[in-house]
Amino acid sequence: MTPAPAVSATRSAVRRLLAEASCDALLVACSGGADSLALAAAAAHCARRADLPVHGVVVDHGLQAGSAAVAARAAEQLAELGCDTARVVPVSVDGPGGPEAAARRARYAALEAARPANSLVLLGHTRDDQAETVLLGLGRGSGARSLAGMRALDPPWARPFLGITRATTEAACAALGLQPWQDPHNADPRFTRVRLRAEVLPLLEDVLQGGVGAALARTAAQLREDADALEVVAAGLRGRVESGGLIDAGALAAEPAALRRRVLREWLLDRGVPELSDAHLRSADELVGNWKGQGPHALPGGFVLRRAHGTLQVEAVGEPPSG
Amino acid sequence: MTPAPAVSATRSAVRRLLAEASCDALLVACSGGADSLALAAAAAHCARRADLPVHGVVVDHGLQAGSAAVAARAAEQLAELGCDTARVVPVSVDGPGGPEAAARRARYAALEAARPANSLVLLGHTRDDQAETVLLGLGRGSGARSLAGMRALDPPWARPFLGITRATTEAACAALGLQPWQDPHNADPRFTRVRLRAEVLPLLEDVLQGGVGAALARTAAQLREDADALEVVAAGLRGRVESGGLIDAGALAAEPAALRRRVLREWLLDRGVPELSDAHLRSADELVGNWKGQGPHALPGGFVLRRAHGTLQVEAVGEPPSG
Repeated sequence: MTPAPAVSATRSAVRRLLAEASCDALLVACSGGADSLALAAAAAHCARRADLPVHGVVVDHGLQAGSAAVAARAAEQLAELGCDTARVVPVSVDGPGGPEAAARRARYAALEAARPANSLVLLGHTRDDQAETVLLGLGRGSGARSLAGMRALDPPWARPFLGITRATTEAACAALGLQPWQDPHNADPRFTRVRLRAEVLPLLEDVLQGGVGAALARTAAQLREDADALEVVAAGLRGRVESGGLIDAGALAAEPAALRRRVLREWLLDRGVPELSDAHLRSADELVGNWKGQGPHALPGGFVLRRAHGTLQVEAVGEPPSG
Repeated sequence: MTPAPAVSATRSAVRRLLAEASCDALLVACSGGADSLALAAAAAHCARRADLPVHGVVVDHGLQAGSAAVAARAAEQLAELGCDTARVVPVSVDGPGGPEAAARRARYAALEAARPANSLVLLGHTRDDQAETVLLGLGRGSGARSLAGMRALDPPWARPFLGITRATTEAACAALGLQPWQDPHNADPRFTRVRLRAEVLPLLEDVLQGGVGAALARTAAQLREDADALEVVAAGLRGRVESGGLIDAGALAAEPAALRRRVLREWLLDRGVPELSDAHLRSADELVGNWKGQGPHALPGGFVLRRAHGTLQVEAVGEPPSG
């Protein structure tokens, strides 16, 4: 029997990923929702053919009433799909940055701890998630890195469904007779991501006459490759302009602004300066790209950047005396 | 008397631009709308202080009933603001690509023809226009170049208001007692740009909790610098891997994908191959980045790309015989 087109699409996506990355086992992260349930089904199918062990993990964040029952039901489905092991890992969600960020941190840490040696962790993010991520990054306005979305392969993390729509994962579950869990958070308009999905993306699709999800995913892929290339080039450039912890300002000045700022960022991070905003990097770069004999430039974290004898140097000046 | 804050903002923007670029005269392009009327006022003010001649031009596209009267009234206002000359240039709008693209082409050609030697042409695009341009580019999904928006300075073109909102240009007109023309096209939902402005951007502002216009403008500036840097690096790389019209495929293969595609694009354009889509460039790059001894690769325009003896070569194979 030929599988339904949606099922074939999910299997091909997992197969393509396995052809790209080598590993000794798969770990599928599953919430019980359509995306990760379709992923578990495709992964179990492909792993069987490739003679790879496949394990299923359901992270229970304990954030919603009844989450333990939802997680247990998901683990049951993972076992039914043919995962070699299927278990629930409860985590406690706390720490800085709001509940969404804290849940994400707890989830990734639990998956990292649960995975076998030399395994890939398969995550169910779809093209729709990628489009939402790009729009979120657009709102931050922090450049290519934040627009570049999620990577398909960033070992041990693997996202075989970034080219597949949510509609496809839902169709695949239906074709396989799987009953995905409907997370009520996915319809709660207090979450920015939910409003992007339910309101902004459909309006953009209408105004721009379709294809927005695919366009955002293409944009993300291209910007990621651009950012990777700039990083490689900037690392090579840094090797040529840095010596003994100092930067040759004249040599750096001849380079394009986007490269100058990347070299400065990496150099300053290595000297212990905290991560700088784009605005801070731009004003630090004035000592290179717009040199008029300025005095030292104060940086966050109690550091000072100065240009002297053609070189840039950075020093900790310490906290001002209190009291 | 201190000028209103909005008036000061428009004047500072023009002054900053004049500090960056040297020229012997200014030409202000004015439609009679708030953006370009505020620009003409600021330019006339700054040019007087800098002892620069300033000329005003109103392009009459002849696309709306009564356009000649609107243009004549705008030219009258330019003269009242103190422009040394103020005139209407009628253009005929035709040619490929839809009426918006044709009007744009006709307008830029008329301004180029009207400008004095060594002058800058000031255009009234605001931060809101820039945000709309970025969203349009996002919908195309064609990477950094299409997201990078408009340049503030691209001689002879200059856009001093890219950091200023439309609300500011309207406030400046009000403070100066100027009556801008309200273009009915700016409220016509048949135009994609109008719907982005009236529907998408306000919704995004609401969902992402503000700052979207500024974030899009920042993103545009950063992506433009990234694209510029990649272009410079790719040109240098091409110099090292090209010899006698052939590309050293092995040397190119060691470079990041984003650079490989840029080198291939420029080289193929110079060999007469028509502009390739990202998808075409990616499949051409398979001969470099994913070499497994493949045969020749057909390109649009009747060209063939092949890899032999470690080099890439491109040939015109001509049209297939018809009939």
